[in-house]
Formats: sequence, C-alpha cells, structure tokens
Amino acid sequence: MSGSVLTYTFLGPEGTFTEAALLQVPGAADANRVPCTNVNTALERVRQGEADAAMVPIENSVEGGVTATLDAIATGTELRIIREALVPITFVLVARPGVKISDIRRVSTHGHAWAQCRLWVDENIPNAEYVPGSSTAAAAVGLLEGDVHYDAAICAPLVAAERPGLNILAENIGDNPGAVTRFVLVSRPGALTERTGADKTTVVVPLPEDRPGALMEILDQFATRGVNLSRIESRPTGQYLGHYFFSIDADGHASDARVADALAGLHRISPATRFLGSYARADEQKAFVAPHTSDAAFASAHAWVRAILGGEPGA
Amino acid sequence: MSGSVLTYTFLGPEGTFTEAALLQVPGAADANRVPCTNVNTALERVRQGEADAAMVPIENSVEGGVTATLDAIATGTELRIIREALVPITFVLVARPGVKISDIRRVSTHGHAWAQCRLWVDENIPNAEYVPGSSTAAAAVGLLEGDVHYDAAICAPLVAAERPGLNILAENIGDNPGAVTRFVLVSRPGALTERTGADKTTVVVPLPEDRPGALMEILDQFATRGVNLSRIESRPTGQYLGHYFFSIDADGHASDARVADALAGLHRISPATRFLGSYARADEQKAFVAPHTSDAAFASAHAWVRAILGGEPGA
Amino acid sequence: MSGSVLTYTFLGPEGTFTEAALLQVPGAADANRVPCTNVNTALERVRQGEADAAMVPIENSVEGGVTATLDAIATGTELRIIREALVPITFVLVARPGVKISDIRRVSTHGHAWAQCRLWVDENIPNAEYVPGSSTAAAAVGLLEGDVHYDAAICAPLVAAERPGLNILAENIGDNPGAVTRFVLVSRPGALTERTGADKTTVVVPLPEDRPGALMEILDQFATRGVNLSRIESRPTGQYLGHYFFSIDADGHASDARVADALAGLHRISPATRFLGSYARADEQKAFVAPHTSDAAFASAHAWVRAILGGEPGA
Amino acid sequence: MSGSVLTYTFLGPEGTFTEAALLQVPGAADANRVPCTNVNTALERVRQGEADAAMVPIENSVEGGVTATLDAIATGTELRIIREALVPITFVLVARPGVKISDIRRVSTHGHAWAQCRLWVDENIPNAEYVPGSSTAAAAVGLLEGDVHYDAAICAPLVAAERPGLNILAENIGDNPGAVTRFVLVSRPGALTERTGADKTTVVVPLPEDRPGALMEILDQFATRGVNLSRIESRPTGQYLGHYFFSIDADGHASDARVADALAGLHRISPATRFLGSYARADEQKAFVAPHTSDAAFASAHAWVRAILGGEPGA
Repeated sequence: MSGSVLTYTFLGPEGTFTEAALLQVPGAADANRVPCTNVNTALERVRQGEADAAMVPIENSVEGGVTATLDAIATGTELRIIREALVPITFVLVARPGVKISDIRRVSTHGHAWAQCRLWVDENIPNAEYVPGSSTAAAAVGLLEGDVHYDAAICAPLVAAERPGLNILAENIGDNPGAVTRFVLVSRPGALTERTGADKTTVVVPLPEDRPGALMEILDQFATRGVNLSRIESRPTGQYLGHYFFSIDADGHASDARVADALAGLHRISPATRFLGSYARADEQKAFVAPHTSDAAFASAHAWVRAILGGEPGA
Repeated sequence: MSGSVLTYTFLGPEGTFTEAALLQVPGAADANRVPCTNVNTALERVRQGEADAAMVPIENSVEGGVTATLDAIATGTELRIIREALVPITFVLVARPGVKISDIRRVSTHGHAWAQCRLWVDENIPNAEYVPGSSTAAAAVGLLEGDVHYDAAICAPLVAAERPGLNILAENIGDNPGAVTRFVLVSRPGALTERTGADKTTVVVPLPEDRPGALMEILDQFATRGVNLSRIESRPTGQYLGHYFFSIDADGHASDARVADALAGLHRISPATRFLGSYARADEQKAFVAPHTSDAAFASAHAWVRAILGGEPGA
Repeated sequence: MSGSVLTYTFLGPEGTFTEAALLQVPGAADANRVPCTNVNTALERVRQGEADAAMVPIENSVEGGVTATLDAIATGTELRIIREALVPITFVLVARPGVKISDIRRVSTHGHAWAQCRLWVDENIPNAEYVPGSSTAAAAVGLLEGDVHYDAAICAPLVAAERPGLNILAENIGDNPGAVTRFVLVSRPGALTERTGADKTTVVVPLPEDRPGALMEILDQFATRGVNLSRIESRPTGQYLGHYFFSIDADGHASDARVADALAGLHRISPATRFLGSYARADEQKAFVAPHTSDAAFASAHAWVRAILGGEPGA
Repeated sequence: MSGSVLTYTFLGPEGTFTEAALLQVPGAADANRVPCTNVNTALERVRQGEADAAMVPIENSVEGGVTATLDAIATGTELRIIREALVPITFVLVARPGVKISDIRRVSTHGHAWAQCRLWVDENIPNAEYVPGSSTAAAAVGLLEGDVHYDAAICAPLVAAERPGLNILAENIGDNPGAVTRFVLVSRPGALTERTGADKTTVVVPLPEDRPGALMEILDQFATRGVNLSRIESRPTGQYLGHYFFSIDADGHASDARVADALAGLHRISPATRFLGSYARADEQKAFVAPHTSDAAFASAHAWVRAILGGEPGA
C-alpha cells in the first residue's frame, strides 16, 4: 500500500488458479501481489488495512462452495465483494525430469484437485497413492525441493510454466472439461460499485430459528420482487446441528429499487443479514426486469403512498 | 353545509337501519341529515360538496357485501371511509290497526329483509305473497298512504316507533338473532384519520389480467407483512365475465409501516389500486403486530439499506 | 318426470333470460319446462325428485355473482352442476300501445335490470321513477293486466316477442353491450359428466377460521398443481361478519389427476368443502396443462412412491 | 458377509469418530468392521454386496455437510439410510513420549480437525506449521512409524486410548465444546424401516432448471403438508456453475401420509428426485402433526375424492 501502487493479497502460493484470477483485474499485473497461505489471512490483511483487496475462490462448478471463503466473509469485520472473476480449471500432472507415468507410486495435490481428476487417475495410474497437499502449487514446488515422499503432483498449468524444473507428463487431466472456479475480489466497505445493469448482489442471511418456514420467507423476499437467485448455499453457523446461514447471490444491484426493497425485507426477517456487495457480473448478462418490479414502478408506488399519507387523492 | 352545522346524507328513507348507524356519529343528532333514495345519490352529494359525509351500508352478516356501495366507492371520484358503525338488525312485522296476522295476504319489504325473515314467514304466514319494496321503511310508510296492494310490511323497529299509525304484529322475526350490518361514513379525501392502534384500512384492487396467480400475489402483499384481512369481496368490473376487482379490509392504519409497505406493493402489482381510507375499528380490537413487521423493524431495515447505499458498513 | 320426457325447472316466469338459457340444452324445447318464482324453489324440486334438473343464473358480467344461487347450491342437500350456458343480455323498453317515451313517468323491472340500464335511463327518461319488480318478465306482463302503477317495463326481447300486446319503444338499452349472464344446469349427484379436455369444476370452500392465511392455503391448492381459476366469489356464511365461504370455478375436470389432487388438498384444509360438479365449458376452451401437472406426471409420481413404500429402488 | 455375522464398512482408519458411531449400532461390536480409506469405497462395498451397511459422516455442526458423503449417496446405484448416530467431537494433541508442547514445530491432522482446533493452536502453539493428513487417526499412527516430518498430531481420544505409544499432551482442544458429528448407516434398498413417530426422511432433489422459482416450489411441497425440514444443503451437480441439487432431511417417515404426498409432489416437480430412506431420529423427538396433515385427514380426503369420482354425494 505504499504510494499509489495497490496491494492485493490472494490465496497462494504463486501459480495457483487464484493468481490467474487476480491477473484478470486491470492493473493487477503491476500491483503488489501478496500470496497468503489461507483465505483467512488474505482477508485479514485487507481488514487490517495492510492490503487494498483480496482475491479468493468462492465457488467451484465441481466441488461447490469454497467453505473457507463463505465462512470467512460471513463473520468478522464487514467486507465488500467488488468484482468477480471466472477461471477455467485445467490440471496437469508434473514430475521431475526423467520420471515416467509408469514410475509413479505416490501423487500429491490439494484434496479438491485430487477429487477432480479421479477418473483420469483411475484409468492411468490406478495404483498411485494419494498424499494430501496444502495446495496444488505447494505439491508441485515440493518436487523441486527433494525430500518429499511422492513422485508426481497435480497442479495448474501456470505453476508448471513458471518452473523449468518441472516436467509435464499429462495435460487436461480433469474429469470435467468445463470446470470453472469463480473468484471474488474483496475489499473494505466503501462507495458502492457503479451499477451496470448486469450486476450481482451477495448477502449472508442467518436463518431465524423462532419461525418455521423462515427459509421460504427469505426466498419470498426475492421472488415477490422478481429478483432471480444465481447461487444459494447453506452453511452451518457452527453453534449446533441444524443452525444455518444462507449465502446468496441475487441478480441486480443494491441501487436497483427491487433489490433494495428485498434487502429491507431480509433485514426485517433476519436482522443479522449481512450485505456483502453489489458488483458487475463476469458474464455481463443483463437481468430481466418485469414492469411491476422496475425502478419506475417502485417510484410510482412510493409516490402514491406518500400522497395517501399526506391526505391527497391517490390517483 | 351552511354555517358550522354539518350535513350528512344517508341511504333513506328516515327510520332505516342506516339512519340508526348515522345517529351513532357524535354530533349527528344535531346535524342536517338528508335521506337519499339510493347509495349513489348519497355519495354523489358528498363528491359535489353538497354534504360533508354519507352513511351507507357496506356489509351484512347474512346477505354479504352491499354491492351498490362496493361498486359506487370503487369507481368515480375518490372518496375516503372515515368511520365504521355496526348496527344489530332486527325486524318487526307491521300493519294498519285492526289487521291481524291471519288476515295477511301480501307483505312488502326490501328484498334483503325478506330474505332474512324467510323462516319466520314460512312458519307463520306461509301463504303470504311477496311484494318488492324499495326499502323497508318505504314499505312500512306505504301502508299509511292507503292505495298499496299489500297488507303488511317488514321493517326496522325505529320506523314503527316513529309512526303511531303502524301496529306491530310481531317482533324479532329475523332468522338470525345475531344479524348485524356494517355501515361506513364516507367523505372526500383529506387528512388521514388519527391512528388508534385498532384500525382498518380499505382498498380496492383490480385483478391484473396479464399475470396468472395475481390474486395470490395480492394476498401475499398483506401476508408477507403480517397484515390480517377481515373482509375480502370479489366484484365484477362489468367489462366481461371473469374480470374482477377485490374489495379488501385489512387490519391496521396506512401510517403503520407494514400497511404502507403493503399498499406500495399493491400499487406495483395493480397500479389502479384505490385507497379508500384508514379508520378506527368499531370493535376497538387492537391488531397483533409481530416484531419483524413493527414500525421499528421497518425503520431499522430502511436505515440499514440507506447505510449500504451510502457505502457505510451495514452493521 | 312422467315417462321419458324430462322435466326442467327454471327461474321464471317464461320469457326470462333463464328460459333462453334452458332452450340451449339439447331436447329442452320438447321437455317439460316448469317456471319457478325463485331459485330456491327451482332447486328444491330437483332435490325432491320432482324435476330432473334446474336452470338457474349464477353469474352476470355486470352485476356479479347471483347470490341467491350461490347460497342455495352451497347448502342443503348436495347437487351437481352438469352444464353451463352463456346468454348475452340485452334489454328492451316496452309499454302498452299508444304510450310514447315522453309519456313515461314510472318504470318497473327487476332491480338488476334497472341497474344495467342506468345510463340509458338517465339520458332518455331522467325523471322516470323506479318501481321494483320481482322479475323483468313479471314487470312486462303486469302492463297487460291493467291495474299497475307504472307505464313501462324493461325486459328481455323474448318476453316482448311472445306478447303482441306489448309495444317495443327502445331496443338494446343496456349500458354494457357485451353483457352476458352465465347459467348452470343443476341436477342430483350421479355419474360424473364425461371429461372433454375443456372442463370446469365448481367447489364451495368454507374458510377455516382457526388458521390465519387459510385463504392463501386454499388458493395454493390450485396454484401448486397448475389449476387456473376462472371465478372466485366470497359469500358470508350468515353466521357473523367476516365468516366466509368461497365459491370457486377451476379449469379442469375432477377426473384430471391435478384437479382430484387439489380437491383432496381442499378437503384436508377445509373438511366441509363441497364439490358441485365438473362439466364442459360453454366456450370449449382447452386447459393448458404443464408437464409436471399432467395425468402422466401424477401417475409416475404415485408409482414411484408406491415402489418406495414397497422397499424397492425408486428409480 | 460370511454366515450370520454382519459386515460393516466405515470411513477409517480404526479409532476415528466414525468407528465410534458404528459402535453405537446394536451388535456392531461383534460384527466384521472394515475400515475404508474413503467414503466412496465404504459405500461401493455395500453396493457390490461385499458389506451389509456402511457408516459414514454426513454432517458436522462446525464444518457443515460432508460433501464426499452427500455427493456419493446422491449418485450411482441407489442406497438407503437406515439409521443415524450422533457423536460428540473432542480432540486431543498427541506426541511421542518425551516430546513437550514447547518442542512442537509441525502438527499433522485432517484438515477438518485442524480447522476445529484453530483457537487452541493460535494460543498454545502459534508457530506450529500444519502438515495435511489423510485422517486424524492416520496422522496419529504416523507418529509411531518414525519417518514422518511432524512432531505431534491432533486426533480423537479413541485413537490415543488404543495406542500406548502415544502421549496425550492436551485434551479437549476443540474450539467448540458442543461440536457434534452426525453419521448415517447406509444399506441397499429393502423394506422400509419401522415407523417410530420420531423419524426422518432424506431426499435428494435436483433443482429443475427450466422453471424459475423451482426451489420455492420444492420447499412448498413440504410446507404445504406441514412437514418440517431439519437440514437443507445445496450441492453443485458438477455440470456448470449454478446447477444444484438439494440434500434435504425432513421430519417424518415415508409411510406418513403427509410425507408420502410430499414425495409425490417432489417427483412431479423434479422427476429425478431420489429417496434416501426413512429412519428413526437419534434424538427420538416426535414430529408435531397438525390435524389437517394427519394420516386421518389424508385418508378422509382421499375417500371423499373417490366418492366424488364414483358419482356419489361427497358428504
């Protein structure tokens, strides 16, 4: 954060898909990029003012929500998502020079990556034993350090490209060729991002316990105002079984009247609802807005109620 | 409306239940009370400024909504209900002196009254023919004028009490001893009546045709804000079969946040929604308000949304 | 009901719109047609087995539900609607020969007809006094009997056409040129009418009092199964203010799985729900059926549940 | 599965919380207990008939749903949950004899356990480095094998108790003293378990994509029949972002009429809905059943509909 150069933290180490997501941000290539060992640390540095924003994974098309991120932004000092990025997920198998696929006995990578290459592994190296790694990049880099107990690693192409000592034995080994991970850039609260017409709003809504049917009430706040949801994840609050919060992405921007009205409804039902930001959709897909949920419809309705409360005819 | 004396129109003639309802209004006994031959006329004089308010029946516990009133206040220049009154409905059978029950061949009264005395008639004067009358009072008064084609009339006790020439042959001949009619006092739009905590709000909501499920959407505007409904009547708009408006009484006052918010929702769904007033309930029964639909909950929610839109933390 | 000739009662007298509706029924022209002075009598004769069916009005595009009919079929011994008929409503002004429009001082007709000719009356005979009549036909026929207190009557064209002594002074005097009345043919319970694919089902659902939101629950029984409603009328039960039943027409036939399922749901919520019949729509408009509410979807769902309950795999 | 001795697989190795859950099953202490290295293998052996049932974790009060289990039972050959077990989760820190807390540089355990002891670690061994382990037990057992790169492990008390070579340095080091994990015993489809009145039913419902509001429709299938939900988890289908299935636990047994009816509704909306079993609740808490959702109410409703379809009066 020295001078005018921005500082970004990200879930490291270097060479992960997260850094690839960060490099999509205009100017990030020339900014300070600080890899962190976990999501919490990346976010904490932003909270403490040591970084301007953090890039962290939030959702994977194969593995689902990234729970560490969902939980970290749902609690603690409030943060704001200001941007999203989508990164196609492809995997390569790497080893030290001279090692062939048939030589492989033990493979290391992050558990999520291992899960996503299961079919390829079963077919090509069925007897390989899995060695848990703290990240895909760490597993790969470990090979260069010599004293690890495994012969190969599964990692992102970026890692291998940056390290000449690693030999790529197989490419595109992920089970799902369309796999994609969604990342979010998280900052401290500040002025809302500009409304583009193709926006998302993220909220965290604890499920009130004292009212049966509360989840339907929560969903109804969106439905009744024509606000579509693109993601909904349940997460335990950690207090006891069956106590949840919901992490929700809704189409639209907080400055859209229908979204602002839905937010007010959520706050009434669940006062600890947390707003996590409105930001441009990576796919730039405009929201469909029914006439009766347009800004104009809300403005007209509120003008009408004001007239009534003022004792004027409503028409 | 001359000087400081108020002028009230009412559905006449004198001696009907409607005048009894009007006499419940403080000061009405000393005001100008102008009987009108039909509901439309009574209301039109208010619209034209010739009267301050009109007392008209709106709902009967036996016969249902008074359609003439429901339709008359749903269209034309906007009006406001400022008070309601409940009048127990009891009927007497009257005739000229000397006429006995066994002499009765033809009985006149208003169609609604005839319907409400069916059991007594079947048991006591089963062969009597029904002669339609324009009102219960008109039927009774007609007996004093001599040239009518009937021997007896069914009317309100008040009419008989005021006319010595009428002889009461039977009292309390209504089939339903708990029958009650609800009347409303209707004025031109002006300052809202004071909120008492035990209020009703009346609206007219045309059913939008272009959206299936619109009736559920309308009801949901109340339900989602915890606003209870005490009356809902469907009425045809007169344009074609299946085209309705709904006349609705909701618990609460337009200056209650939950009611104001519901009104705004109704206006969005059905922009021709008409507000017909908020007024004290005759039974003085307070509305139950759930914490998340209280004025405080709405104020807190709107403050939170304002903070978010202003770029501040929401907490 | 003697021999093979059917007997139909109808809301008389002869010449009313109701008889026109009855004549739409195949064979009715050659059947016994018995006019009754009121809806209750027409229905009671069917209940007693003295007639095969009764034709009665149920809904008018201008005046709304015919409350006498709605109430009469909602209580008492169960009946079934087996057919519906639509009759355009047009009015004529009749008088004795020699009487001109400018001579008219008093006009008689049924109250509903008077209400539907208000605009024409205001413009053409603004000073005419209204004399209530028990039916439009009775008012017209009265003119031929000589000792009535009025000069003219408003009635259906059919009445005038059948009575040479009546002179038509004006035609098509109704305010709403598209006015139509819907009639239903009512019989005793028996085998369901055949399903045509363009059917209606009529039910009467008392609103349970012990559960707030019961009306939405009732509507949801239809909505959740994709059953559209073409008519919904609230009627007081007569017990006290605010106690209603709803008279509902739904698209579809009781032997459609989605309708049968909705009926079961209604019975659970309001056990006194009354089924009033399934019958072909007069307009022959087919219902739209979403795939997940088709008979096939219900059959598949029930087979699946049976498999589960039998301990078999569900797939 | 040899002879009459049952064979159970479980997520191993021995000494994990999963084995503790298995030992709650009557007779399991004397059965063949086969530890498996992952949930998929444990379930696959049941599918292949090599084991009678598998005990696997499904939900943790701190970490949330166990995604490996949720995904494994949602796809592939159908299975049935026949029992649930709750196990309090407590952790101990173990090392080889002679090692003191102040000596610890590197700690191994499963990622979930590491996450649940974060506070204790930060306070007591803030500089310890984390070494990912494939299970808590494997991390502990590794200490006895000599050539591992870490000094201590976090594991369940059961592991330490069974291995004299491990020294317990600290007990109850979990951040959340009330932490509990829920396990399920999974078998092949067969006769439904007996209804106890305190049952749960688990289903997997893919979210139909072609209908907005489908999630509310799904939830409404339960709500409209008074069936309470105790768990709802969204999981990606893995096809693309935003494509989900929901894993749901509902109160009640498939042979409860309200649950069977809800299941049929789910199947209509989402034909690929998968039934995963009805089984007794571990907490033996009876479900509240409103009168209109009782078996009697359903039986009465279906009898009524059958009468109607048979042409009989409904009353």
